[in-house]
Amino acid sequence: MSTFQIDKSFLEKVSSLIDQGKNKALQNLLNDLHYADIAEILSELESEESTYLVKLLDSTKTAEALAEIDEDLRETILNNLSAKEIADEIEELDSDDAADLIAELSEERKERVISQLTDSSYVEDIRELLSYGENTAGGLMAKELVKVEEDLSVLKCLNRMRAQAENVTRVHSIYVVDTKNRLKGRLSLKDLITANSKALVKDISIPNVDYVTVDTDGEEVAKIMSKYDLEAIPVVNDKKELLGRITIDDIVDLIKEEAEKDYQLAAGISSDVEADDNVFTLTKARLPWLILGLLGGLGSVFILKDFETVMNEPELRNLFFYTPLIAAMAGNVGVQSSAIIVQGLANDIVKGSLFNRLLKEVGLSLINGLILALLIIGFGVLIDQGILLSLTIAGAMMSVIVVAALVGTFVPIVLDRRGIDPAIATGPFITTSNDIFGIFLFFYIAKIILGF
Amino acid sequence: MSTFQIDKSFLEKVSSLIDQGKNKALQNLLNDLHYADIAEILSELESEESTYLVKLLDSTKTAEALAEIDEDLRETILNNLSAKEIADEIEELDSDDAADLIAELSEERKERVISQLTDSSYVEDIRELLSYGENTAGGLMAKELVKVEEDLSVLKCLNRMRAQAENVTRVHSIYVVDTKNRLKGRLSLKDLITANSKALVKDISIPNVDYVTVDTDGEEVAKIMSKYDLEAIPVVNDKKELLGRITIDDIVDLIKEEAEKDYQLAAGISSDVEADDNVFTLTKARLPWLILGLLGGLGSVFILKDFETVMNEPELRNLFFYTPLIAAMAGNVGVQSSAIIVQGLANDIVKGSLFNRLLKEVGLSLINGLILALLIIGFGVLIDQGILLSLTIAGAMMSVIVVAALVGTFVPIVLDRRGIDPAIATGPFITTSNDIFGIFLFFYIAKIILGF
Repeated sequence: MSTFQIDKSFLEKVSSLIDQGKNKALQNLLNDLHYADIAEILSELESEESTYLVKLLDSTKTAEALAEIDEDLRETILNNLSAKEIADEIEELDSDDAADLIAELSEERKERVISQLTDSSYVEDIRELLSYGENTAGGLMAKELVKVEEDLSVLKCLNRMRAQAENVTRVHSIYVVDTKNRLKGRLSLKDLITANSKALVKDISIPNVDYVTVDTDGEEVAKIMSKYDLEAIPVVNDKKELLGRITIDDIVDLIKEEAEKDYQLAAGISSDVEADDNVFTLTKARLPWLILGLLGGLGSVFILKDFETVMNEPELRNLFFYTPLIAAMAGNVGVQSSAIIVQGLANDIVKGSLFNRLLKEVGLSLINGLILALLIIGFGVLIDQGILLSLTIAGAMMSVIVVAALVGTFVPIVLDRRGIDPAIATGPFITTSNDIFGIFLFFYIAKIILGF
Repeated sequence: MSTFQIDKSFLEKVSSLIDQGKNKALQNLLNDLHYADIAEILSELESEESTYLVKLLDSTKTAEALAEIDEDLRETILNNLSAKEIADEIEELDSDDAADLIAELSEERKERVISQLTDSSYVEDIRELLSYGENTAGGLMAKELVKVEEDLSVLKCLNRMRAQAENVTRVHSIYVVDTKNRLKGRLSLKDLITANSKALVKDISIPNVDYVTVDTDGEEVAKIMSKYDLEAIPVVNDKKELLGRITIDDIVDLIKEEAEKDYQLAAGISSDVEADDNVFTLTKARLPWLILGLLGGLGSVFILKDFETVMNEPELRNLFFYTPLIAAMAGNVGVQSSAIIVQGLANDIVKGSLFNRLLKEVGLSLINGLILALLIIGFGVLIDQGILLSLTIAGAMMSVIVVAALVGTFVPIVLDRRGIDPAIATGPFITTSNDIFGIFLFFYIAKIILGF
């Protein structure tokens, strides 16, 4: 591919040019790069070097790079810029990125930066965007779009479009509005190019246009855009007035972030962290789940202590050797069941009633449990273990697997119905509760069968 | 939002119209819907009803819906269509979707369907696409695109474009080629609209254009397109001849599939399954991981058996009560470490040497381990456990946590360097090995300290 590859020697060259203060050479080297490459360079350098580059290079390049980089690094760099310098960067951005960047500043700095912005309608746009919730369509949208009034002629429309297109990075769609700015439809570029120049916009406009309202949840926007393969979607208020549009590149970022969040939750990591975050941030995201696991483990201590007398029986004490196996099975089955349900819920494909869903999991876990039980019995024969003991272990394990599958299915569905993100249920939460539950069930069933 | 909501009563209405054979009413009801809605309806109905609808409705609607639905359902429906009927559907599709659909047919059916296609250049396109690997740029691209030769005038270019645009669902970019079809650059629609009609294409074209070659890996394409916020990327061969283009909607699907695959691997589910798949498919995806866990658990049985004599000591036997806790800690810490590394690798942000990475994990796990150890000691005091025993348990657990973190970090990095998908390392693989390892280490350290 033609895309530029940033390697170690290139980064060293940049570093050494910065050290030597060779500004001209730096500008020559970096000015032709894509902002995404500049962003990568900023991320790889030391933060003082990155700050130096942001101050040196033209803000047409660095503004979008700043919007792309990691939040922590951006905070460090912005802390070393004056309000005026930040305002210069922000003026190069689309309103959505500008608002996101300003939202990260402290209250006092926010106002100082805004007061440095020269274009008052741009300031108004940013203030409007700041008023919406971060993860709503309003918080995601940009104010920049191309719109035309339905009563215009095609010729006038083309002129109007040319003027607006100057401020819009990419023309995805041309929206058609009435005199009160209410969304009426959209124009296809193709139809526009081929239409008679005297025709009216409303004659060639497509009335059917998907839209979302400012308070639509970001995940819902992502679902609609990816279902209907949309590259942009207009955002309206409850009067159907056109306020902005959301483009697919922002949605791609959102989908990736959501997927990473779910993945981390399943692995027992809360809040969005990265491998390069500092030890304190990582601890904050990881320790709570470990403490949850610890509490579960301490709970098991009590359960096992209750069966301590079993240790005095040379044959029965073997049960204790199986506790890690039982805990692992209960945990694994629970995580599997919950992961499938969580993904099904995310994709809206969990059809049918809760009862049918649970019934299916029971059937599935009985099949899995039966095969695993046979393996256990075979193992018992191999190590010359009493057949009654082996049968007890196998049977108890099967019950544990069925119950673990039910818990793994039930919990995310219930959480989802109560409006809680079910992704929290895959991972340590399910593992820990199934650990305790499984060990208790295992010993209790063994007690009934073996009568101790 | 204006998007159409498919609810239960609507589906019942469709079902009953199908039952009564009211074809006219069905066509009126469904013909104005978006293909994504048709796809949703097909997915929700019984498969005989879905087949009925596909045969009844116009293939301009059903073709894209067929391309959207789940592979299993598509197979069922296609099995009930004749080769001619399938060919009619395929002719409505872009070449990439057409090739994907044909690739799923049996060898013999494939040829019968292709022989029914009337447009020979379309057949040629499909055959070419079928020749590329499924997960390469060649396998992802569509042949439909808008291209113009660099020596054309803007006026001729506009005419050429109008003709080509007929076959292209969405004009993302206009590519510029030389007389030998080699990619030379791209045109911006804005520049084209505003340029003098006598100017040559090469005068207004942008020479800098990102592209990928046919054999570029799909994940790499996704990375490039999302890094550079591209909505389409041209695909060339090694002579730089323009062969096709990949659009962002296909990449959105790819990103979602990759994320789901990684998530399932972390939860111990191999191969891409959904909550609605049948019990056999789900078992095939889940059982192998459970057997892995079982083998790990049986391994622990041997380790614990080795320390059986400890059970004869009233104080020391307490160690056994802590095995679920140790296994849970080892598993959780390992999964956390590996998840962060796996995501870091996917995003190319794992900087620095392996040694530094391991050092950081050691520091991190020492901090976490210390806090957890203090909690264990506190718990020991509460339940009136011998202080030496509590200290031993806390110390051994700390070692287990450090080792688990090292294994969780080391394994994915090594897998990645050997070209194996590191996502396989998060989940049962790490949990199971850390379970065994942790329990062994725990008892071994306790043995050294307590001297049994």
